[in-house]
Amino acid sequence: MKAGLLYEGKAKRVYQAEGKPGHLVLDYKNDATAFNGGKREVFTGKGRLNNEISAYVFNVLNKQGIQTHFVERLSETEQLVHQTEIIPLEVVVRNVAAGSITRRLGIEADTPFNPPLVELFYKDDDLGDPLINDEHALFLSNINQDELLKIKTKALDINRQLSKVFEAINLKLVDFKLEFGRLSGGSIVLSDEISPDTCRLWDITTNENLDKDVFRHGTGDLLEVYQKLLHRLEAGS
Amino acid sequence: MKAGLLYEGKAKRVYQAEGKPGHLVLDYKNDATAFNGGKREVFTGKGRLNNEISAYVFNVLNKQGIQTHFVERLSETEQLVHQTEIIPLEVVVRNVAAGSITRRLGIEADTPFNPPLVELFYKDDDLGDPLINDEHALFLSNINQDELLKIKTKALDINRQLSKVFEAINLKLVDFKLEFGRLSGGSIVLSDEISPDTCRLWDITTNENLDKDVFRHGTGDLLEVYQKLLHRLEAGS
Ligand SMILES: Nc1ncnc2c1ncn2[C@@H]1O[C@H](COP(=O)(O)OP(=O)(O)OP(=O)(O)O)[C@@H](O)[C@H]1O
Ligand SMILES: Nc1ncnc2c1ncn2[C@@H]1O[C@H](COP(=O)(O)OP(=O)(O)OP(=O)(O)O)[C@@H](O)[C@H]1O
Ligand SMILES: [Mg+2]
Ligand SMILES: [Mg+2]
Repeated sequence: MKAGLLYEGKAKRVYQAEGKPGHLVLDYKNDATAFNGGKREVFTGKGRLNNEISAYVFNVLNKQGIQTHFVERLSETEQLVHQTEIIPLEVVVRNVAAGSITRRLGIEADTPFNPPLVELFYKDDDLGDPLINDEHALFLSNINQDELLKIKTKALDINRQLSKVFEAINLKLVDFKLEFGRLSGGSIVLSDEISPDTCRLWDITTNENLDKDVFRHGTGDLLEVYQKLLHRLEAGS
Repeated sequence: MKAGLLYEGKAKRVYQAEGKPGHLVLDYKNDATAFNGGKREVFTGKGRLNNEISAYVFNVLNKQGIQTHFVERLSETEQLVHQTEIIPLEVVVRNVAAGSITRRLGIEADTPFNPPLVELFYKDDDLGDPLINDEHALFLSNINQDELLKIKTKALDINRQLSKVFEAINLKLVDFKLEFGRLSGGSIVLSDEISPDTCRLWDITTNENLDKDVFRHGTGDLLEVYQKLLHRLEAGS
């Protein structure tokens, strides 16, 4: 079903979908990267796991009425999505302080954010994806103030929905990164992926990390942890 | 009129005002610092110039109905101000891209911002005064959403007033940094200083810098340039 390769990122290859105008095939790779590409390793099976986990999560969101790019899973590592023009923002929602924010703002790890914190980063690898404010976002992207507000509201809505999904399998959704894109018709939908590469998930009982932090900090077996997450999602539903 | 030294910063010493409860004496120093204290030099006469320039600017703002901490100039290097509890934010207004924002976001120098851009930085030397967004500001300081909105509106209002003042003496107000503080009664007023240490000012005809950039980049004589600015302000009024 894949036609020409459009783009190869760190985690996925993006192809035009054969005979399906306006659609793309995302092919999940086995590469794990961290620290802006500074750490890199290949894990055979990671692509399949993230494809399945992200498909699972996007199916949940689609069913709950959140508009997303996701159409269907095609194969072990591939999924069909609507093509969007990605808005160059990484939208991060934080329920608990972890990772970069603790160093950047001197906030103690594990501090809860009530209400959850929304952060915007400018998607630009050369600049190191810097944190920006709303005014920067309007200046640097082609969205208007109303669209930005809707994106942030949607991010918080997704946070509420996903926090419930993960709580049901005894996991705390600590933080996650979203990307949004514009369909050819103009409307903005959730795009990219939601996976343990892009979320922090902590076991509520044991505090164990079920996410990429095991790779970042060398504290666990990435494949084992991603497999455990997928099992729990499938068993919980 | 000075009682005990309360605090010594990079640019000013702060004293309790003798016999004037709720008031402080700010004593402007001759030190110039840049790059987070990485470059430092003493210029005899700088304290007097900044004290006079900042007093001039705060007098203009007081007359135009902006509430500030400023009471009066006391001596060559001293001024009397209302004591405030400084809100740990540096509020930056930018009319034109210059300095850090060009590197941080890859915006070409001299790009105009229309409307002007407001940025917040968390006033914390150990963290390097990082850029923050509104939600961080509410989390990190003791101001509420309404007060934050008022601070940003006031910053833009000050930008309009000062842009006119400087335009009248053939200078472009490129950007500047403000600090706000809370009076014992609870209301928030403009505090700290407005001087060529905290503004970028460009001659409209020659593009010459009349601000601390001549020290940052070693492109001019700081005392000459600050003296020229004070002369123009006094001649223009
Ligand atoms: N529906 C979509 N339409 C178009 N592009 C998409 C869609 N969903 C995701 N993408 C883009 O696919 C690309 C590949 O994803 P991947 O996660 O591998 O990129 P990355 O290396 O993390 O980041 P970068 O975007 O900086 O390349 C990303 O640029 C992502 O924004
Ligand atoms: N009205 C006021 N009441 C109380 N403090 C004030 C007032 N106006 C200014 N200040 C504070 O006076 C201090 C000394 O000023 P100065 O410019 O020397 O500090 P700095 O070295 O630039 O920065 P820092 O605030 O990090 O020390 C600053 O902390 C400033 O916030
Ligand atoms: Mg990615
Ligand atoms: Mg200062």
